[in-house]
Amino acid sequence: MRVRKRKGAEEHLENNPQYVILNPEDAKGRWHEIFGNNNPIHIEVGSGKGAFITGMALQNPEINYIGIDIQLSVLSYALDKVLASGAQNVKLLRVDGSALTNYFEDGEIDLMYLNFSDPWPKTKHEKRRLTYKTFLDTYKQILPEQGEIHFKTDNRGLFEYSLASFSQYGMTLKQVWLDLHDSAYEGNIMTEYEEKFSRKGQVIYRVEAKF
Amino acid sequence: MRVRKRKGAEEHLENNPQYVILNPEDAKGRWHEIFGNNNPIHIEVGSGKGAFITGMALQNPEINYIGIDIQLSVLSYALDKVLASGAQNVKLLRVDGSALTNYFEDGEIDLMYLNFSDPWPKTKHEKRRLTYKTFLDTYKQILPEQGEIHFKTDNRGLFEYSLASFSQYGMTLKQVWLDLHDSAYEGNIMTEYEEKFSRKGQVIYRVEAKF
Ligand SMILES: C[S@@+](CC[C@H](N)C(=O)[O-])C[C@H]1O[C@@H](n2cnc3c(N)ncnc32)[C@H](O)[C@@H]1O
Ligand SMILES: C[S@@+](CC[C@H](N)C(=O)[O-])C[C@H]1O[C@@H](n2cnc3c(N)ncnc32)[C@H](O)[C@@H]1O
Repeated sequence: MRVRKRKGAEEHLENNPQYVILNPEDAKGRWHEIFGNNNPIHIEVGSGKGAFITGMALQNPEINYIGIDIQLSVLSYALDKVLASGAQNVKLLRVDGSALTNYFEDGEIDLMYLNFSDPWPKTKHEKRRLTYKTFLDTYKQILPEQGEIHFKTDNRGLFEYSLASFSQYGMTLKQVWLDLHDSAYEGNIMTEYEEKFSRKGQVIYRVEAKF
Repeated sequence: MRVRKRKGAEEHLENNPQYVILNPEDAKGRWHEIFGNNNPIHIEVGSGKGAFITGMALQNPEINYIGIDIQLSVLSYALDKVLASGAQNVKLLRVDGSALTNYFEDGEIDLMYLNFSDPWPKTKHEKRRLTYKTFLDTYKQILPEQGEIHFKTDNRGLFEYSLASFSQYGMTLKQVWLDLHDSAYEGNIMTEYEEKFSRKGQVIYRVEAKF
């Protein structure tokens, strides 16, 4: 997602410490304390402008959500959505998905989502894909035994790659959807990219994979 | 595939013992002898009218192929194709895919193909799908360690099911194609169903999975 630098984005984030975790290293191992309850914690890596994480938070008040994105401006738009929603069970974190073990204790996260991750179609950029094995190492560590990744995308190449990558890592595919919007799946919360690409007639793929 | 009973189909098969194995139990453990060489043996289960198995035999003369189908009339059409092709490295077998261990020794088959298998969309018919776990038990036994199944279909539901079934059986997905005809895959041999459904604009899915 290419977003123009937003003026005042940094201040906007800093002014909302109730929603934006400003010293993420200090949060490691303390997430239940931060949320103020012992509910399960689900994260989205690459959460973009936050429609999914906010929608999920409203849909499932008994779950805590953390939206993670590396881009300051993008995260500031997500903050707008969180503020507008009034949801109390969602936090935002501006960190790199490759470094999650710095911010989460082993097994501290119950489930993770990847939505419309950057496809990096060139083979030489394989290592940047969020479903590349070094990322899976990281996710595995912060998830419980048999922890799950739920991934959706419109990008055929990335989805083909990710199914094989999960499988070759030793993960099990619990269920696969090859046209999510024409399926029996209920309660789907759309992301910004999902809105945009499905409107263009693109098929949406989804998979639930477990370690 | 529903095919009208073909008059004289049985005689046609019986008159061509060079191509049609009439006493399949006797062939178990003797397939290299039957082919008269030590080349690898690949089978297709549910080979229908034989376009794929015949095309593969012509494309790869150093591999032996066996087309397997349970329907007499269908197999007799496959025989027509084999005869017309002149290929010497292909045999036909009229048996049930669930009983392959009666006709093949452990590890006797090097690779197997499933193409456009009957989808059996109703959950109550799951056990009839050729990618159901009891079929995988059978295939595993006649294939070598890390033996592979190459499967293609236009049927979304069957493909979603099969990816999960392979994975949950402990198989690894080597590669997945979500639109075979719009991919870099080379040397594809079309089946009768593939011709028909791709002409209608259906996407063709393909996977290579290994035990
Ligand atoms: C294509 S956008 C999709 C956004 C959103 N999930 C959606 O579906 O609308 C990908 C997002 O992932 C973020 N991203 C890319 N690499 C990342 C990384 N290594 N760590 C965290 N976020 C990342 C980008 O900043 C961008 O906002
Ligand atoms: C839908 S057709 C596809 C034929 C061909 N593979 C194609 O792609 O054109 C499925 C075929 O599988 C055969 N078949 C179904 N169940 C089978 C079984 N248990 N053992 C062997 N063949 C079977 C049917 O007789 C039919 O010819």
